Amino acid sequence: MPHFLDSADRDFPARFGAFLGLKREVSADVEATVRAIIDDVRQNGDEALARLTKKFDRLDLSAVPMRVGADEVAEAVAGIDAETLEALTLARDRIRSHHGRQMPKDDIYTDAIGVTLGGRWTAVEAVGLYVPGGTAAYPSSVLMNAVPAVVAGVGRIVMVVPSPDGVLNPLVLAAADLAGVTEIYRIGGAQAVAALAHGTETIPPVAKIVGPGNAYVAAAKRAVFGTVGIDMIAGPSEVLVVADGDNDPDWIAADLLAQAEHDANAQSILITDDAGFADAVAGAVERQLTTLARGETAAASWRDFGGIVTVDDIHSGDTLALIDRIAAEHLELACENADDLANRVTNAGAIFVGRHTPEVIGDYVGGSNHVLPTARSARFSSGLSVLDFVKRTSILKLGPDQLRALGPAAIRLAEAEGLGAHARSVAIRMNPGGPDGG
Amino acid sequence: MPHFLDSADRDFPARFGAFLGLKREVSADVEATVRAIIDDVRQNGDEALARLTKKFDRLDLSAVPMRVGADEVAEAVAGIDAETLEALTLARDRIRSHHGRQMPKDDIYTDAIGVTLGGRWTAVEAVGLYVPGGTAAYPSSVLMNAVPAVVAGVGRIVMVVPSPDGVLNPLVLAAADLAGVTEIYRIGGAQAVAALAHGTETIPPVAKIVGPGNAYVAAAKRAVFGTVGIDMIAGPSEVLVVADGDNDPDWIAADLLAQAEHDANAQSILITDDAGFADAVAGAVERQLTTLARGETAAASWRDFGGIVTVDDIHSGDTLALIDRIAAEHLELACENADDLANRVTNAGAIFVGRHTPEVIGDYVGGSNHVLPTARSARFSSGLSVLDFVKRTSILKLGPDQLRALGPAAIRLAEAEGLGAHARSVAIRMNPGGPDGG
Repeated sequence: MPHFLDSADRDFPARFGAFLGLKREVSADVEATVRAIIDDVRQNGDEALARLTKKFDRLDLSAVPMRVGADEVAEAVAGIDAETLEALTLARDRIRSHHGRQMPKDDIYTDAIGVTLGGRWTAVEAVGLYVPGGTAAYPSSVLMNAVPAVVAGVGRIVMVVPSPDGVLNPLVLAAADLAGVTEIYRIGGAQAVAALAHGTETIPPVAKIVGPGNAYVAAAKRAVFGTVGIDMIAGPSEVLVVADGDNDPDWIAADLLAQAEHDANAQSILITDDAGFADAVAGAVERQLTTLARGETAAASWRDFGGIVTVDDIHSGDTLALIDRIAAEHLELACENADDLANRVTNAGAIFVGRHTPEVIGDYVGGSNHVLPTARSARFSSGLSVLDFVKRTSILKLGPDQLRALGPAAIRLAEAEGLGAHARSVAIRMNPGGPDGG
Repeated sequence: MPHFLDSADRDFPARFGAFLGLKREVSADVEATVRAIIDDVRQNGDEALARLTKKFDRLDLSAVPMRVGADEVAEAVAGIDAETLEALTLARDRIRSHHGRQMPKDDIYTDAIGVTLGGRWTAVEAVGLYVPGGTAAYPSSVLMNAVPAVVAGVGRIVMVVPSPDGVLNPLVLAAADLAGVTEIYRIGGAQAVAALAHGTETIPPVAKIVGPGNAYVAAAKRAVFGTVGIDMIAGPSEVLVVADGDNDPDWIAADLLAQAEHDANAQSILITDDAGFADAVAGAVERQLTTLARGETAAASWRDFGGIVTVDDIHSGDTLALIDRIAAEHLELACENADDLANRVTNAGAIFVGRHTPEVIGDYVGGSNHVLPTARSARFSSGLSVLDFVKRTSILKLGPDQLRALGPAAIRLAEAEGLGAHARSVAIRMNPGGPDGG
């Protein structure tokens, strides 16, 4: 049974607060382990990678090259059925086309007093992409992480993917190939993150690392942050579906379960203004669970973290406040006037508008990115985009006239802040040869 | 004596690598202390703030309200001389006007098959601004952090500033007033960061915290990251000046010292192709040091971390590679064809172009932001901008026709990834009443 909450109940604020505060992730205490692995790789380079890969992935890197060859990739691609390859290509094309619109434009201009200023965007020189091994190896995630980097103009895109017992997922290799990944190494875990950040004899270091991973990978990314940039630390996935009674309960149940099947810690929430519909969806969820391959995972997620919230009016200001407070990674609006409601929402990673936009379309072929802020972080952060692979250099240029115009104010403020050399650096250019001339 | 490096020396690569790797910051081990303070504030709210403020700032919050009143701000502003207030206002106006151009535009469009998609930008609802007390309380930093938030449309901008022994810097209050800060509290340290992140009886929580601080503040920001967003963790400041021999050595020496006077851990580097000029600058630095109020700090920084690198040709590809590798927070180009060189640089927080653009102008009145990536992080990150105070919600909308067009590919990929509920969530809408209908 999921959590049932009724906004008309007297204790709703407290219960809703407790529901929002459910701790869905136990952060494993892996920092010391990860720190030792990182130090090992920094000191021993490739030798450490080989040793740790043998230990954790049962793979002997003296028998197979660390870098995955072009022939191996080509072979993987050749083995994939045409329909799947076509679907991956469609996804790639739509992601590329959408992200192409996100490239920020330089803005360098000259203002009224003749100062030239602005910002110039350049691509990050080299990016590392972590791809998990095993069941969580999603080719769609490879596309979502690598394509925006390619669009941004990143020159080196270095994928690392563990191959437990030597096995690599051919779909992951195919996605890397389609996306434009430039190097692939069959390593994983904290050791792969360390290699990307600090470099080894075989792997030149990158400037930024993106991509999902387990607790060790997440801790390693946190530890190397500063040496390199990282993307967000993703938490378990979540969906909030806002639906009125004019929906097929089975459609909405399927959407809730699509989120729940990801992970026992995933969270699916329904907000509706129709108590009967709420019951119908709850029933449909139970029925569908029995026929799901990943039913056990989905059932655990729905039981522990699922929620059904009944409200008086989906479009009221009170409901909007609930939606913004949840700040869901995925927000599905299956109701009348969904466009209007979408425009009023402030906090959401992505909004799926209307009855014919299941969130799953956004996971694969919508064109928008499926790497989105989790755990209420949509209050302050955005999904992955081209902006994550570029940086802005600010530009300032004055001539003697502009320095004369702005100099006195700069000197005044430097003096007010007690910074004498700051003041001198300006004054000396306004009074060449004067007493400040040294 | 700073570090002298000659790119023609055989051991230059090793020496340059060692110079770049100089550890300028010893990260104090304050995490356990900070964790205890954060827990204390979470549990005890205002009472903890009062107790910790009494302990660390020797200020009794039962005698004076935590929130700084409008009358107190007005009084501070009234006490400031006209020239300084005018300089602050000029800085505010120029920062506001420049940052006004950075507001990203929504991009929501309908593609060739009728899918509506794109991104919508909204302001972060509430932002906390940490301002250090004591000598590092810079009114210019208040403007640089608060004005972009105002431009972004942030509704609540909450400044915290410690007042050791009850003393507040009137210039900081004036800058907050000019910038548009909406609330000011006289608290500081890790306890202030905790209050901003988790809220107390008096202070409602914010969604993001920005601004510089000491090791405790930095550790507290790291600890609350995830609960709220944070800006970068700023390291000691640095400047790289690239200068040919046609400069007045005293001008360049003043620029190097303006950086060095910030902090004994600051770093000033000169790259020049004129060995005689290098010596002249080194001499000018020594002379100017004797007349600086903050000469002791500047001398320590210049001695321990300062560098003079002589190269064959400022405009060569080799020198460009050095510049990009240093990835300086501030890059000053005092040379011929400075515009051309600026266009070729990839990694720099900000570039100050030409002989009449001392970096100090950018600290105060240029209009661009002086919060910039330090410690080589310009390889992967940007200076503070309006983008730091907004977030992007992605939008996707399909009708039945678009779902029919894209659905099969989504189902194929979901099946390839083993996610049955994902596949069903799409299929059920394509085959209403079919066998997947539950």
